[in-house]
Amino acid sequence: MDKGLLIVVSGPSGAGKGTVMNKLIAGGDYALSVSATTRSPREGEQDGINYFFKTREEFEKMIADNEFLEYARFCGNYYGTPLSYVNQKLDEGKNVILEIEVKGAFQVKEKCPEAVLIFLAPPSMKELEERLVGRGTESPEVIAERLARAMEELDLIDDYDYVVINDDVDEAVADIRSIVKAEQRRAARNIGINKKIKGVD
Amino acid sequence: MDKGLLIVVSGPSGAGKGTVMNKLIAGGDYALSVSATTRSPREGEQDGINYFFKTREEFEKMIADNEFLEYARFCGNYYGTPLSYVNQKLDEGKNVILEIEVKGAFQVKEKCPEAVLIFLAPPSMKELEERLVGRGTESPEVIAERLARAMEELDLIDDYDYVVINDDVDEAVADIRSIVKAEQRRAARNIGINKKIKGVD
Repeated sequence: MDKGLLIVVSGPSGAGKGTVMNKLIAGGDYALSVSATTRSPREGEQDGINYFFKTREEFEKMIADNEFLEYARFCGNYYGTPLSYVNQKLDEGKNVILEIEVKGAFQVKEKCPEAVLIFLAPPSMKELEERLVGRGTESPEVIAERLARAMEELDLIDDYDYVVINDDVDEAVADIRSIVKAEQRRAARNIGINKKIKGVD
Repeated sequence: MDKGLLIVVSGPSGAGKGTVMNKLIAGGDYALSVSATTRSPREGEQDGINYFFKTREEFEKMIADNEFLEYARFCGNYYGTPLSYVNQKLDEGKNVILEIEVKGAFQVKEKCPEAVLIFLAPPSMKELEERLVGRGTESPEVIAERLARAMEELDLIDDYDYVVINDDVDEAVADIRSIVKAEQRRAARNIGINKKIKGVD
């Protein structure tokens, strides 16, 4: 069985990563990596489903034990991707999607150059602001902080493999599915296929 | 308007390039480049639609006048891609598909590094032989020649960007559509998109 594909999706807070991820995994052909974090659960978020909620002490022990594919601090909280879960799913042949922020994405690319980095972008800053305000979960100060951060993150698109504009959620999901399908067809990921076709493998 | 994408599809004779190309262009979103050739028309082939049929003298004058994106000799005949038609379609924002053999594909990649090279492969050599025999248009000697050539061509897959197995025509067409969509989302093809999102472009 072929190993699965490791897909990293980043993008500004409010770009719609959560909605897009949910639609992708609803199809059943992707495993969504569950991140660990020290931030407090938002309403409705469940431990082990949305995140593994950890204390700072627990998280720092996992860092020390080298149990993360990547981790970062953001707005005073730790976020990280436990390595064991990802490797298990990839070995099972499942495509694994990580939803992580930019620094984490580059950590992953460094550790796993075959990972596919996708930047999910809002159609415009105006639209992003409207979404963040409309969500109603953050204070004006936090929203201002996230918008400023979004401006910085947008300048990192060139370091990603792909950029998908989330104007329409279904189109963005279809774009990501196309990217994954295309990546699976990359010649560099199919070394030895000539022998299989010749029947000498 | 964005420039179109130049897509090159190669693959052994009998891999099903013609059928796949016809289904792709039937969708209306691709321009199929019409090649020039000195070979005789097969039954049903029309000049200016399937090929521009040229005499050897005409073809060699076009070579001398640098009117080809690529050209090659194969089985005693010339095949080439007239440059003007391709550039015109790309400038119009149309994606242009070239169906050309391996040497021509590498000539295109050298002249246009942004071209996307797709190798269309049969599922197996056995299947390829059955298709060639079933087609009934070539003599046993020509079939043997094509099979030998296919064995060589399969070893060049690694030099292509993508490999698509034509087991099921509709799936192969869907694969190519996904590849094109993904390539359009490549960050390297969307330089400056950060400025557009910020509204400073």
